[in-house]
Amino acid sequence: MTFAERLAADAGLIEAHLSAALAGRADQPVTEAMRYAVRGGKRLRGFLVLEGGRMLGVPEDRAIGAAAAVEALHAYSLVHDDLPCMDDDDLRRGQPTVHRKWDEATAVLAGDALQTLAFELLTDPALGAAEVRIALVTGLAKASGIDGMVLGQALDIAAETAGRALTLDEITALQAGKTGALIGFAAEAGAVMAGADPRPLRHYAAALGLAFQIADDILDVTGDEVRTGKRLRKDAGAGKATFVSLLGLEGAKARAAELVAEAEAALAGYGKGAANLIAAARFVIARDN
Amino acid sequence: MTFAERLAADAGLIEAHLSAALAGRADQPVTEAMRYAVRGGKRLRGFLVLEGGRMLGVPEDRAIGAAAAVEALHAYSLVHDDLPCMDDDDLRRGQPTVHRKWDEATAVLAGDALQTLAFELLTDPALGAAEVRIALVTGLAKASGIDGMVLGQALDIAAETAGRALTLDEITALQAGKTGALIGFAAEAGAVMAGADPRPLRHYAAALGLAFQIADDILDVTGDEVRTGKRLRKDAGAGKATFVSLLGLEGAKARAAELVAEAEAALAGYGKGAANLIAAARFVIARDN
Repeated sequence: MTFAERLAADAGLIEAHLSAALAGRADQPVTEAMRYAVRGGKRLRGFLVLEGGRMLGVPEDRAIGAAAAVEALHAYSLVHDDLPCMDDDDLRRGQPTVHRKWDEATAVLAGDALQTLAFELLTDPALGAAEVRIALVTGLAKASGIDGMVLGQALDIAAETAGRALTLDEITALQAGKTGALIGFAAEAGAVMAGADPRPLRHYAAALGLAFQIADDILDVTGDEVRTGKRLRKDAGAGKATFVSLLGLEGAKARAAELVAEAEAALAGYGKGAANLIAAARFVIARDN
Repeated sequence: MTFAERLAADAGLIEAHLSAALAGRADQPVTEAMRYAVRGGKRLRGFLVLEGGRMLGVPEDRAIGAAAAVEALHAYSLVHDDLPCMDDDDLRRGQPTVHRKWDEATAVLAGDALQTLAFELLTDPALGAAEVRIALVTGLAKASGIDGMVLGQALDIAAETAGRALTLDEITALQAGKTGALIGFAAEAGAVMAGADPRPLRHYAAALGLAFQIADDILDVTGDEVRTGKRLRKDAGAGKATFVSLLGLEGAKARAAELVAEAEAALAGYGKGAANLIAAARFVIARDN
C-alpha cells in the first residue's frame, strides 16, 4: 500500500471508530456538533498512531482506539480554537465552524465533551493491559494540557499582546506546544503499546511536528483557501512573526526540508518498516492543504 | 472528628494536593487562572471521594489524587459554565469569574487544561494498581462527558429555548446529568479503589445529588448573595422551571428531606463508619451557601 492509500485507509478506520463511539449517545445538538467536528481532515495524527504501531508490530485493531482518541482531542482543540474569543474563524475543513453552524455554547460544550471522549477512548481494553492504557492516558494528558498544547495556545495569545514579534526560539517553543506535543504523543503511542523504546519515534515526531508547522506558515502565504478549506493570510495581516517572516520563504522551505531529513534519519534503524512514516514526513512539507 | 471538621480538613488536603499539582507549571496567565479557579468552595465532591474511601478502608493519602481530580473537573465545569455564551456570570465563590478577572480566551483555555489535569491526576500510582486507575478514568469520563455532565448542560440549554417549562421528570433527568453524575462518581470512587461493591454508595449518591440540586433551587429563592458568593434569583427571573416552581417551597423541602432519608438508608449496612457521609447528606439540605 502506498502512503497515500494508507493515509486514506487509516482515515476511514478512524472515522468508523469515532462514528461507533458517538453512536447511541444522547440525541442532542451537542452530540451532533461532536459528530460534525470529528468529520473530515487528513487524520495525520491518527495515522501516526496506527503506522507507528504497525512498524512495531501492533495491529491496527489494537491501536485504533488510541488513533481515534488523538483525533477526538485534536477536534476539540480546533472547535475551541475557532471560537470568537480565540481565533474567531468561520470556516474549518471547508465547512462552517461549530459555533457558526450552531452557537458558541454548543461549541464550548462539544469541545469539552470531545476532550472527555478522547480519554474515554483510551480506556478501551483492546489497547492492551491496564498499565499500557494508563501510560497512554498519562501521555495524552501531558501532551494536551498546560505542559503541552494549552501551553502553546497560551504562548500564542501572549505573543499577540507582547508588543513585539517573537524570535525564532520563541516561535519554535510555541509550536512545540501547540502542534508538536500532540504529534509527539501520536507518534510515540505505537511504542507505548508495543512496549518498545519510544526515543526514535520521539525524535522523528519532534522533527515532523516542526516541519508541519513551518509548512503551515508557508501555506498561509502561498496556499489556496479553497484547497485548504480555511482562511489564510491571517498571520501577515496580523503582523505576527512566522517561520516565513523570520527565515524568508526560501529559508523556511530549506529548514523544513532539513527537518524531514532529520525525521528520516531518526527511523533509519527500522529499514523498510518505516517507509510510510518517512513518506508522511515528506508529505507534510509537500501538501497543499 | 465532626463532619464540619472533617469537611474543612479534607478541603485543606485537596487544596494542598491541587497546589502541588499546579506548582512548577509554565508561568502563564492560564496557569494562574487554573490556580485561581480551583481555590475555595466547599469541596463536597472531593470530600465524598475521601470519606467514601475511608468508610471502606482506603487511606486518604491513597485517595487524595481522585479527590483532587474530581475538584479539578468540577472547577473546569464552573469556569466554562460562567462564560458569557453560557450562564454569563460575573461572580463565583464571592470572587470575579475567570473571564471577568482575565478574559474569555484565558477562561476557555484554563477550563480545558483543568479537565486535562483531572485525568492526569487519576494516573497517579498512589491511587492503586493500573486496573484501578483505568476504572477511575473510565468512571470520570462517563460522569463528565456527553453521557453525564455535558448532557445535563445540553439539556439545560435546550430547556431555555424549548418555549415551555420542563416537567419534574425532565428536570430530574437534567440534574442527574448536570450535578448528579459527578457526585455519583465521587461517591463511588472509594468503592472502586477498595474493590468493594459500589451499589450502596451509588444509591446514596443518587439521592444526595438530587437533594443537593433541590437545595440549590431552594437557596436560589431563599438565599443570601453575600453568603452564597454568587448571583441568585436567576431562575425565577428567567421563568425557568425549578424544583421549587414545580413542588412549591414546602414541597421541595419535604422532597429534599425524603431524599436525605433515602441516602441514609442506602448506607445503613456500614453502621458508624457511614456517620460523616450521612452528616454530609443532612448538611447538603441545611447549608446556606
